Parts: sequence; structure tokens; C-alpha cells
Amino acid sequence: MKSRAAVALEAGKPLSIEEIDVEGPRAGEVLVQIKATGVCHTDAFTLSGDDPEGLFPCVLGHEGGGVVVDVGAGVTSLKAGDHVIPLYTAECRECKFCKSGKTNLCQAVRATQGKGLMPDGTTRFSLGGKPLYHYMGTSTFSEYTVVPEISLAKINPAAPLEKVCLLGCGVTTGIGAVLNTAKVTPGSTVAVFGLGGIGLAVIQGAVMAKAGRIIGVDTNPGKFELARQMGATDCVNPKDHAGPIQQVIVDMTDGGVDYSFECIGNVDVMRAALECCHKGWGESVIIGVAGAGQEIRTRPFQLVTGRVWRGSAFGGVRGRTQLPGMVEQAMAGTIALDPYITHNLPLERINEAFDLMHAGKSIRTVIHF
Amino acid sequence: MKSRAAVALEAGKPLSIEEIDVEGPRAGEVLVQIKATGVCHTDAFTLSGDDPEGLFPCVLGHEGGGVVVDVGAGVTSLKAGDHVIPLYTAECRECKFCKSGKTNLCQAVRATQGKGLMPDGTTRFSLGGKPLYHYMGTSTFSEYTVVPEISLAKINPAAPLEKVCLLGCGVTTGIGAVLNTAKVTPGSTVAVFGLGGIGLAVIQGAVMAKAGRIIGVDTNPGKFELARQMGATDCVNPKDHAGPIQQVIVDMTDGGVDYSFECIGNVDVMRAALECCHKGWGESVIIGVAGAGQEIRTRPFQLVTGRVWRGSAFGGVRGRTQLPGMVEQAMAGTIALDPYITHNLPLERINEAFDLMHAGKSIRTVIHF
Repeated sequence: MKSRAAVALEAGKPLSIEEIDVEGPRAGEVLVQIKATGVCHTDAFTLSGDDPEGLFPCVLGHEGGGVVVDVGAGVTSLKAGDHVIPLYTAECRECKFCKSGKTNLCQAVRATQGKGLMPDGTTRFSLGGKPLYHYMGTSTFSEYTVVPEISLAKINPAAPLEKVCLLGCGVTTGIGAVLNTAKVTPGSTVAVFGLGGIGLAVIQGAVMAKAGRIIGVDTNPGKFELARQMGATDCVNPKDHAGPIQQVIVDMTDGGVDYSFECIGNVDVMRAALECCHKGWGESVIIGVAGAGQEIRTRPFQLVTGRVWRGSAFGGVRGRTQLPGMVEQAMAGTIALDPYITHNLPLERINEAFDLMHAGKSIRTVIHF
Repeated sequence: MKSRAAVALEAGKPLSIEEIDVEGPRAGEVLVQIKATGVCHTDAFTLSGDDPEGLFPCVLGHEGGGVVVDVGAGVTSLKAGDHVIPLYTAECRECKFCKSGKTNLCQAVRATQGKGLMPDGTTRFSLGGKPLYHYMGTSTFSEYTVVPEISLAKINPAAPLEKVCLLGCGVTTGIGAVLNTAKVTPGSTVAVFGLGGIGLAVIQGAVMAKAGRIIGVDTNPGKFELARQMGATDCVNPKDHAGPIQQVIVDMTDGGVDYSFECIGNVDVMRAALECCHKGWGESVIIGVAGAGQEIRTRPFQLVTGRVWRGSAFGGVRGRTQLPGMVEQAMAGTIALDPYITHNLPLERINEAFDLMHAGKSIRTVIHF
């Protein structure tokens, strides 16, 4: 079938609005009509060409919401008409990782997903007869996309897809890192480095966890107002201080924070986030994705004296199991999504969403099909 | 009073057996007659001059067992005749750290202890009228030493001091890192880097935790026999493999270990210990003390994909509260101490203990007064 799509023809160029060909779903696969999708920094990172695993030409996008159109052979958990959020972290419930009960990092389709292909090693997309790669197993920048059954969370059909699509990545990542990975305790002190979409979601998660003090850190003070609205109790601009930001925060908090979160992808900030943690028990969670080959570093004394260094992917959330409940929380108002949506645009204007993001003018632009 | 002591007159020189002067205990202090003391790598590290915090001349030693001789004003928890193990990590039960319930890193006497002084900022030791520094708040290389009340664990007087002195550092550090810091679960796979005293204690802790597989790693295969006797199920010499040791262990274990422990103090080994952990849940604990200014490093992807990096000091053990119970375990045979004691020597031959350690010929030499 034909589908309108924003295609990444090559790295470093704007997306091209095209009419692509989408093959029907094969065994274990599902054809989804995307109704709305967020545009995330990870899409921009891959489009820039800096992502060493980026493959072109491809259909980007991984923060979508849609409706099932058709299912392939053997698909039992979904049928046409079901509302779904595509998952870039699948949940097969059968691999060693899923069965461990300790992680959300299902490995069932990881190898082919990383190669821009469906689990059978082929692609369902083409443009003018030439194949297009999939992206993160989701490719939500196409009106019609094909996704493995195990990479779809079935959600309440009453949920507004143009909002809950944000639970496909950023909001879930931030809230989940607080609740699932760090397990922030009531009354504790939290530092959040980077006040973009993920950082705001961390603040929201910290509020949900009843943190006593939430310190937002960003070099762009334009981010502070929204951070405060979301629940930050303090906002700090490292540029306002001569010393290292970790020392500033240690001094502000009588020894350091109980939990910190890096939401940027900068390895120097990751170090600062660890080192502003309280001796004896402070825990730092890396959420941001660093550039290829970059390394974190610190003195081991930081860990020997009781700090803990962790990371989080998709907020530790098992998508099929946990995302439906988060959609319910969004519908009930427990999770706010409106504050993230600073812009709405039609697919044809998707490149403006990237421009807004690069200019620091948007948190999330939602693309409507 | 006069006391026989092995004095570190200057860095890089052998200890000198001297008759030193020891002042009586002041308020909150206790005079202890040391009956036996282990010799640990940390003593050797400071004696070498590589420890930037090392102060000379001083009385080293921090792994002792002794009997209370006299107590200063205000001391209520100890009296003459009590058997004690000096603690380089105090437990005041009143500071923010003790009250947190989350750490054993009491800070009550830390500042003065780090300066080689008693909490009132003075020393109780002198030689020929010139002051000698204390060391780690314990200075167990003197027959008589003065220790803060909060830095003494009162133990069962029936316990053999020439054995349970090892619970003053190495054995407790290793077992505690397994049981308190990592909280190793039954059936799990463990890797232990460095098979000296700490590494063997980690193995013993892993056996106590009912680990399913315990992999010992050392470049000296002479350490393997004792490691196996203590409970290692596999022993690996990195020199036998062309590739990095982390990859060797990942291959041996179908994806990596559940827990790893670095017991050397080498930042490259710390990295290997983290990276041999299983994606999704593996946790690595740094126990070894690295040289001044050295840093650990890895790609943040290691953490984002679910590994956790921790550290442990004195095995997370609160000395006054938990060490008496560990002494009981040693008396009951639950904790074995004999395997660590490869040599016994009188104080006058203490320099031979350092020689044996440097030559890799001893695990622990116990010095008898």
C-alpha cells in the first residue's frame, strides 16, 4: 500500500515528504496507522549522521500512537482497530532478559532492529522500488508502519493518541527512571541535569515519588519557568557559578543529593551528576545517550565512599505490561502530558519540528497525520 | 607509659622496632593492649610513600585485636578487661551518616583521623620526646594504643584475638561487600578479581550467600589452589587469553556475571570487572583502593544497558553493631579465618611480613606481641 512518510534520504539533510510503499505484515507482524508522533532528540541525533549505527535511507520516528489496520499470521494479542503505542524496546516475555524479572531490555528482536530490518531480516518499506530501512523497530514518521507484535503496547482506545504518543519515549523514560530505576523515596533530594523533555519528565516523576527537593540544572535559564511549573523547587545555571556544578550542589544540599539524573548525553555532566551525590548513599542515573566512543570517568573513591552509578533505558519500563497503565494514569491526570507539547504540526511541516528543537524553542512537537 | 612498637619513621624505609611513649586515654578514649595484628596491603601502601595522605613518623597497623587497659572520662560502653577490635571506620550512632541507616561511613572522627590525630587534635604517641602520628585511628603496630571509644567493637572474650583480629579489616571487607553491599543472591554467578586476602574473603562471602558459580581471576596462578579450597568453582588467568578478560568471562557465562568484585585497586581491572557483568542487571563492586589521582572509565552505554557500578568500604559493616556477630560466626565456624593466616611472626620480625606480602608468598601474616 501507499503511505505518506517523512523519509531520511541521507544524513545531515532535511526529511523528504514522500509517498512510500509499505508491504503488508508478515508472520508475527502488525500494520499500524500512525495518528500522531513526537519528534525526539534521538531522531535528530541519527539524522545528523553522528549516530554510528544510523542507516540511510530510512523512516525515522519512535514516539508514536496509532491504530492496528491488519495483523500477520500468528498474531494473537492484537486485532484491527486496537489502539497501540509502538515500542523501541520490545517485550517478548520469553527471552532470558524478560524472564529474569530484573530488566526491561528484551533482546528478542534487538539484532535485526539494530540493522534497520524486521525480525526476518527484510524491510517492509520502499521508495520508487528501492528499499528503505526501518528505525528503532517503530518508524513512526510514516502514516502506515509495520511493527512486530511484541513491540506494541495495546492501550485504552479512549486515550488521545496525539498526547499519549509521548509515552512512547520521553515521558516514560524520565518518569520510569525515577520510579523504576532509582526508586526515589519520599522526602529525598533530587538533581536533574538538562531540562528538556526527559528532564521535565524526571521532575514529574520526582513529584510523583514525593521527593522533598527537586533541583533543576540547565545552562539555558529559559527552561527554568516550565521546570518550576512541573515541580522543580530550585533551578541552577552552572554558568552563574565559578566552581564546578557538583560542588555548587553539594554546598546547596549539605553534602549532596540523594538521587541525580543526567538527561543530556554529555559525559562531563554525567560525572558532575555522580559527584553531586551524597557520600554514603547518593545514586546517579544516566539517561542521556553520549556520542560514539565517549567515556565517563571519575575517581573510584567516589564509589568506594558509597555513591552508586546506574543507567536507565526507556525508564526500565516493560512496554506491553506497564505502558497501558501509564496511559490510564495520563487519562486520569496523574501523569500530565500537555506541558510537554509546545507545538503541533502536520507531517508536511515536520522539518520545522527539528528546527524548533535545535533552537531550544520546543519541548515536544507532535506531528499529526 | 612505655610500649614496644614498630614505627614508620619515614616513607619507603622498613619499620623500626622502638620503645615509644604512650599517653593515657583522654575523655572518650580507650587504652588498648594489642595482642595480635594482621599486616595489610594498605599498611604497605602508606609505608611506600605512594599514599598522598600518609604522614610520618607514625605507627601503622589497622587489623588488630586487643584488651582494654584503661578508659578515659565519659567512656561508658567499655571497661578494663573487655576484648575489642579497633575500627578504622567508627560508629558514633549520632552523626547524619550513622542515623541515615544507609551507610557505615560514620564521619564523627574522620577529619582528625585523616590527619593522624586523636579527635581532640593531638597525638598520644611520642618517640624520644618527638610526636608520632596515629594511623587510621587504630595504630595496631604498637603493643599499647589509644583509640576513641566509638572506634572499638566489643567482642566475645572467648574469641581468639590472634585470629579474629583479621575481622578488623580484610575478611570483613570481603565478606561484607558480598553480603551488605552487593547482596549476592542464591544461585548467582560471581567474578572475583584479585585473589589476595580480600578476594578470598569475597569468595567466602559468595559461598555464604550460596552463589552458584564463583570465578576467581588472578595473573598469579599460584593463588588458584587456595581460591578453590575457599570455594571458587573456576579460576582464570588473564595471561592465558589473548582477548580482554571481560570478554573471556562474558563468553564463559553466557552473557556475563551477576556480580563482580575488584579486590586489587587497579583502575583497568575495575573497568574489566564492570564490563564482565551481565547486561540488564549485573552489578560490580569496587573494593580495591586505587593510587592517587587515578580514574575509572567506561562507556556510559555499559550503565544505560543495566549494569550498576558500586563501591564498598569495610564491607558496609557497622563495626560496633555488626562485628561482634561476625566474631561469633568465626567462633562457630561459619566464617573461616585459618585459611588466611599463612604466617605468624613476633613483632620484632614484622618487616618480614611486608617482604612475604610483596613477594606474593603470604595471604596474611599475624603479628604477635
